[in-house]
Formats: sequence, structure tokens, C-alpha cells
Amino acid sequence: MAKDNKKMVDAITSMDEDFAKWYTDICKKAELIEYTSVKGCMVIRPYGYAIWENIQHILDGMFKATGHENVCMPMFIPESLLQKEKDHVEGFAPEVAWVTHGGDEKLEDRLCVRPTSETLFCEHYSNIIHSYRDLPKLYNQWVSVVRWEKTTRPFLRSREFLWQEGHTIHATADDAIAETERMLNLYAQFCEESLAMPVVKGKKTESDKFAGAVSTYAIEALMHDGKALQAGTSHYFGGGFAKAFDIMYTDKDNRKVYPHQTSWGVTTRLIGAVIMTHGDNDGLVLPPAIAPIQAVIIPVQQHKEGVVEKARELYDTLNAAGIRVKLDDSDNSPGWKFAEYEMKGVPVRIEIGPRDIESGSCVAVTRHNREKAIIPIEGLADTVKAKLNEVHDALYAAALENRERRTYSCTTIEEINKALENGDGFIKAMWCGDEACEDKVKELTGVGSRCIPFEQEQLSDKCVCCGKPAKAMVYWGKAY
Amino acid sequence: MAKDNKKMVDAITSMDEDFAKWYTDICKKAELIEYTSVKGCMVIRPYGYAIWENIQHILDGMFKATGHENVCMPMFIPESLLQKEKDHVEGFAPEVAWVTHGGDEKLEDRLCVRPTSETLFCEHYSNIIHSYRDLPKLYNQWVSVVRWEKTTRPFLRSREFLWQEGHTIHATADDAIAETERMLNLYAQFCEESLAMPVVKGKKTESDKFAGAVSTYAIEALMHDGKALQAGTSHYFGGGFAKAFDIMYTDKDNRKVYPHQTSWGVTTRLIGAVIMTHGDNDGLVLPPAIAPIQAVIIPVQQHKEGVVEKARELYDTLNAAGIRVKLDDSDNSPGWKFAEYEMKGVPVRIEIGPRDIESGSCVAVTRHNREKAIIPIEGLADTVKAKLNEVHDALYAAALENRERRTYSCTTIEEINKALENGDGFIKAMWCGDEACEDKVKELTGVGSRCIPFEQEQLSDKCVCCGKPAKAMVYWGKAY
Repeated sequence: MAKDNKKMVDAITSMDEDFAKWYTDICKKAELIEYTSVKGCMVIRPYGYAIWENIQHILDGMFKATGHENVCMPMFIPESLLQKEKDHVEGFAPEVAWVTHGGDEKLEDRLCVRPTSETLFCEHYSNIIHSYRDLPKLYNQWVSVVRWEKTTRPFLRSREFLWQEGHTIHATADDAIAETERMLNLYAQFCEESLAMPVVKGKKTESDKFAGAVSTYAIEALMHDGKALQAGTSHYFGGGFAKAFDIMYTDKDNRKVYPHQTSWGVTTRLIGAVIMTHGDNDGLVLPPAIAPIQAVIIPVQQHKEGVVEKARELYDTLNAAGIRVKLDDSDNSPGWKFAEYEMKGVPVRIEIGPRDIESGSCVAVTRHNREKAIIPIEGLADTVKAKLNEVHDALYAAALENRERRTYSCTTIEEINKALENGDGFIKAMWCGDEACEDKVKELTGVGSRCIPFEQEQLSDKCVCCGKPAKAMVYWGKAY
Repeated sequence: MAKDNKKMVDAITSMDEDFAKWYTDICKKAELIEYTSVKGCMVIRPYGYAIWENIQHILDGMFKATGHENVCMPMFIPESLLQKEKDHVEGFAPEVAWVTHGGDEKLEDRLCVRPTSETLFCEHYSNIIHSYRDLPKLYNQWVSVVRWEKTTRPFLRSREFLWQEGHTIHATADDAIAETERMLNLYAQFCEESLAMPVVKGKKTESDKFAGAVSTYAIEALMHDGKALQAGTSHYFGGGFAKAFDIMYTDKDNRKVYPHQTSWGVTTRLIGAVIMTHGDNDGLVLPPAIAPIQAVIIPVQQHKEGVVEKARELYDTLNAAGIRVKLDDSDNSPGWKFAEYEMKGVPVRIEIGPRDIESGSCVAVTRHNREKAIIPIEGLADTVKAKLNEVHDALYAAALENRERRTYSCTTIEEINKALENGDGFIKAMWCGDEACEDKVKELTGVGSRCIPFEQEQLSDKCVCCGKPAKAMVYWGKAY
């Protein structure tokens, strides 16, 4: 007890003092993760995993509602299969884990643990696709993948991470491009409606494309510290993989032609994004849609007659209304519990004590702004639901406000450097489309291109770097 | 079309002719799996994966209702960690896949891809368990594991397979033993209520225990061909792993003591069990609780006015009632569709044509017995629900009848061999408890011990093998 109390009283590092340490403090103290003896591989603890389950549940429903089906590919890719698409193997081979032995036997063709599964899906498609009647296939899988990263951080960059990878194959390029855009929009909608996190939708520059893609689209979010985080990607492959893997189908005119492919994914990185978008110096702040506990009920003076019973009644009411609710009637002090569920980012706390019961009310405190309200017990479920909606809207508004405040339109390199003196953020600036300028902007200012947003603005007609005619406005930033 | 038709007209191998080929024919032709270029690793296709999702959904609900929480451990285990528990490493090391390189770098401590995760959970428990207040932890994870098997078969024995592994840790041995039994009972309940598959619950003999366990419990089912299939296991570890991994907690009297552990799991093997318990010579037969499609609606003479519209109406009715329903109004012939959904084991088929519409009725055909009934459209959802319940009960009764018919009580080796002349099955026979007799029974008859059932019968007072005093009745059989 004394020990537990101490743990909670230890404040986490302030985000202004050391943002990186604040982040890992939350990961540990909100009991999202624990480290293991394998560098870069972590345990996702029950509270962290419950957040992922909620993310999965919502996204999986959205995928199925748009006609996608789940499958499961093997985790191993033979080296010879990985090598079939030239750009793809160049992009991934340097960072894969290799299995060389099965039991005591040395493998003839070594196997990599999937860093992504394009090659496996392509092999499968070459087996099952023959006619235009077999198209499209809209497949997805929920698995973990491995990339042998040098520097790692919980959720943001780990050697193994959980994700979903959609892999679709279509009769025409138009169908595949439409799918690429559909899924990017779906991700954006999910981030905004379920994570309360505004995102910028756009296209990656050539230098930042996925290995093997014709074009890569991404959603980019801005964290508390002004750094950008790529929250999801959607790739259009054209017929490149189909050619490399010899996937052909007979079209309606009885010609053998190549199909067109896409892939798209989001990862447990989204949990990192939620922490760095909404968290504060008391810990995690969770958007209600993915919070494992949406409301926690804490009895006050629970030794007094009728308090725990009333608390249970409230629990039953909220639970029956479909709210994810927890009653904590353990023998820890109310103060300890307040701190505990603040650390864990529970959106609404309900306090109920003898005086509240007498007046037919209880106290509701919203985590993100600590506002206290005395609310009637009658109609409690509706009141709590309304509060959860308010919390979502307030989180979204605050995140948007943070992003807008930290987004700067610049027309010269000097303006970029001047803007960044206020701290990191998004820079909007025009670009000629030349990779040399992209590199030079990074060299001179420290910000790289994040994406070419779908929503373009004409800030000037000249490239921010070389002054030649601009082709597009680009979002620039320092990235996680 | 011609090609598709042909595919469906090709009958699968008869189970009487070649049971193993019948089995793999169903796996392929019902589109449950596809092979890959990695031996022993398969693609689980959408229809097969949807069955697994239904199994997961039901079991996960049962786990959570009994207080379990999901977590996610890394997929890699350092060799040094695997070696900490002597029996465990001896049991698993010969069949693990080894990762020796990350990118170009050779690893100092090579990593195995988890064949099971006791060692990872133990490392984690040693980090998070300090006081009796930290106990119990009732954890589970849904992942895939790898075992480098020599001979492989879809679902039944593959080098990678999907499963759930529960890992729990308790203050006392009694609590851990109760958990071991609780989960075995939960598995049996699931098999009977959701898979319509009767199982025998019992304890494994010493020679058949999990590597590192004090005792292993299992549920055993009998397949169509009279072979036994272990459908789930639950292990009691005592304090062995805790000692090996130095997990200790401070009890209420302030003493440092060892906790007690369990683990339990079921795998995608359950899909193989369903195929071999209920399937027939026309393909798969699925129990309604896990069928991805519970009812398929097939319009007859669908070019005629109003037929497709009416079929859609029926679809909406069943869908709104929570039945997993599919309307197939593709341009394939009704005959093709009948064969297709029979192959896929859809429990109920609804046919609707112009004459049915006129008479306000439709035709319902149940897959397992091909019984046709004319049923009124009014109240259709209730009728279909009742039919699904009937199907479940009939499948269970048939599976139980098959098992009873193939279960023989024997008191001598000769009786065992005589019984097996009728084909494989369960042999019930008394045993002295001596491993030498267990081996000898296998040598002389071909059947090995499956389990010592909880429900004991006193068939004789002598061991079937040596004639010395018997300690228990054992179920014997040939096993998958």
C-alpha cells in the first residue's frame, strides 16, 4: 500500500522539461508497456492492449463495411520471394530479421520474418487470380511485423510492432487508385472521429515513397512538441508487383492483362500519437472512443453505510447503458485513486459520497480540463454520454488549435528558420518538385517534406528554396 | 464461368476412400486455406479466417467474463531466456526456428521465434509481481507460434499456427489448480456449445505432459475416422517456473514466497476438428455458432420480375434479426450455387422463386441432412433461428453417437485388438500407472493413452496390460 502510494505520488517528468522522458514515463506509469530483454521488443500490458483492441474493433468494422475481408498470411518470407521485386527488396532487406535454422537443421533458403507482406500476398494472388471474375480482392490482415531498427521507442519505433496491412488487387488502375484514396480517407476519418486527432492528408514526395510503390499517400498529425507523426499510409502500386510476380488475369475480351494493386496500414504507433496529442503532465488523456475505461466510479467515505451500494447502482446504470465503466471500491484512498485514473487518462471520474447520496447527486470530473460538476443521479447515463461527447470535441478542438498555432506559411528559407525559433511545427511552403531542393530545405532548416497536401494553397508562385516556378505547396516538419 | 462450374462439379475424394485426401480436399475446395512456398506454412483464406474470428469472438468473451485480460508479448525469445527452465527447453528447443541475423548484423544471443510463451510471461511477471496485492494475474494473448514440425497438415499440424495462450499466476497452489480446471471446463463447454463437438475431459499421463508442467489436462475428441484429436490443453506448473525465473512475492505475513502458475491454449486446430467431426462427402458442415454464413438465400428464376427484390427483402429480415446471412444473386446457376454453399457447409439454404412468392413461402434446406421444408415467409427469422438451433443439436447428437459407437471397453490386450478390427476408436481400459505398460499397450495394439478421464469407471481391478492392480481407467486411441 505504502509502496503503491509512493509510485503514484512520484510525478512524471514534465513535458516542458524533457518531452521524450515525459513520453516514456507515461508509457510505463500508465501501465501501457513494459520492456523485455529483447531490445526494441516490448510487452503491451493489458491497459495498453485494451486501447489497441478498441482501435482494432472500430477500424475492423470500417474495413468490413467497405467490403474488405480478413485473411492470415504466414510470418515467414523466403529470401528468394522477397527478392522478386527489385525496389521492394532494396527497401526492406537491410532491416529484416533472418531465420537460418529450423530446429537443428540449416535452411536452404533462409526466411525473413515479414517486415510487410506484399510479396506473400502477390504469391497468393498469382495462385488464385485467373479471370476478371476473380477481381477485386479486398484483403486485410491484423498481425505483427518485424523491422530491425537501430534506435527504438515504445509504440513509435519498435523492432516488432502490431498493425493491420490491407492488400488489394483490382482490374483497372482507376479502381486501384480509388481504393488507395478511399482507405486514406477512412484513416483520416478514424483519426478525427475516434482519436480526436486532426490530420493532414496528402501525397508523399518521390524520395519518401514506399519501396515498390508508384505513389504513397499519408496522413500526418502534429504532436504536442511540434513534431510531425505519420499516422497511416496508403500505397498505389500500379502493375509493378503483378509483373514481378507474374499475376495475370483474362479480361472480358479474353486478353491476358496485369491487375493493379494497393496496400495500406496503420500500426500501434497510433497509441503513441494519442499520448503525444492529448497527454499532459499528469499522464495520459484518452479520447472516449478508444478509452478502455470511459468512466470510473470512486466511492468517497466508502466505509459509511450505503455508499458502496449506491456506487454499485451507478455502475449498473452506466454499464447497462453501454458505457465502459469501472467501479474502484478497493481499499486505496480516494486521493490515490484520483491520481491513478488521471495517470491512466480515464475521460470521466464520478465521485459518490454520503452527502451526494443525500442530495441525489454525484460529482463528475472530466480528465482533460479537471472541471468538476455536480450532476443529478437521475438521468446519469445520458449525462455521462453527453460528457463523453463533449470531451471528444474538446480534445479535437485543442489538438486542432495546437496544430494551427504551430503551422507557419513561409516563402523563404529565412522565414522558415525564423518561424522555427518559436519551436517545432508544420511549415507550409511552395516547392518546385526537385529533389535537390527538398534535400536543401532539410539541410538549411532541419525540416523535411511531410506530404503534398490534397488541399493546396498558392502561397507564392516560387519554390521556397531555388525560386524557380513552384509546382505544389508542401507541408514540412521534423518527424517521429 | 465454365471453369468455375467445372471446379464445383469435381467431387471431392470420398472420406471412405481416402480420409486424409478428403480432409485436404475440403480445406482447399471450401477455400479455407491455400499453400505457400514455405513448407508447413499456409494462407488462411477469408472463409477460413472468418471461422477463426468467430471462434475467437466467442472464446474471448468467455475469457473476459471469467476475469482474464489480453496482453501481447514479443514474438522473440532469447536463447538464454528459453534455457532457464530445464524441462521446458528440452521439450521445445529441437523444434524452434532460430533468428541469427538482424539486417546484416549477427546477433550475439540468437533468438527463437516463440513456440509458446511461458518464458516471456515469466520474465514479465518477475518485473511486475512483488506483493500479494499484485496477484493473481490472469493474462491471455492471441498470437501465432512456430514449431518446426517434420510432417505438416493444414490446421492439424503446421509450422506456424494461430492460437491463444493463457498464462496465469496465483498466490496459492489451490488457486492455480482451480484455474487449470476452470479453463479446461471452459474449453469443453465451448467445444460442446459452439462447435457441437463432444469431448472427454481428463488428465494426461506423465509421459504426455507439457514440458515443464506438474500436470497437464486435456480435452479429447473423436473424429469421423475414429482417430482422437487433442482439442485443448490446460497445464498446472506449480512453482517450477517461478523458481527458475526467480519470481517471488511478499505474502500477507511479510514472507517472500513463490507464486504458482498455469497456462492453457487452443489453436486453429479446432477448425480441423470441426471439419473431421461434421464434414461429409459433399464438403464442409459447419455448426451454426461459428459459421461465417449461417443462412444463404438463393433466388430461383431470378430473371423473373420481383424475385430478386423478394430475396433482398428476406435478406434484410434475417440480417436485422442478427442472423449472418448472404444473398447470392450472382449470375451463376442455382445448381452451381447449391453445390458451392454445400461445399462451404452453410447450415441453412433458403430458395425463393416465383411460385414460392405466390404462396407466401420459401424453401429451406438444412445442410447436414439435406432436408427440404416449405416454410412461410411470415416469421422467417424465428423459423431460421429455430432451424439453426436444431442443426446444432443434430450435429452434436450425431458426433456423440459416432463417438459412443466407436468407444470400446476392454479388459485385455486381445479385446483391444479385436475391437480395433472394426476400425479406429476410443478404447477404455484400466491401467496400473506404470509407463512400461503404457508403452507396451501402444506396441501391442497401436493405441496410445489419450487421457485419464475425470469420469472414471471401474471396468476391472486389473491393468489391461500387466494384470497388476489398476489405478485408473484410461482412454486410449490413435491420435492426430
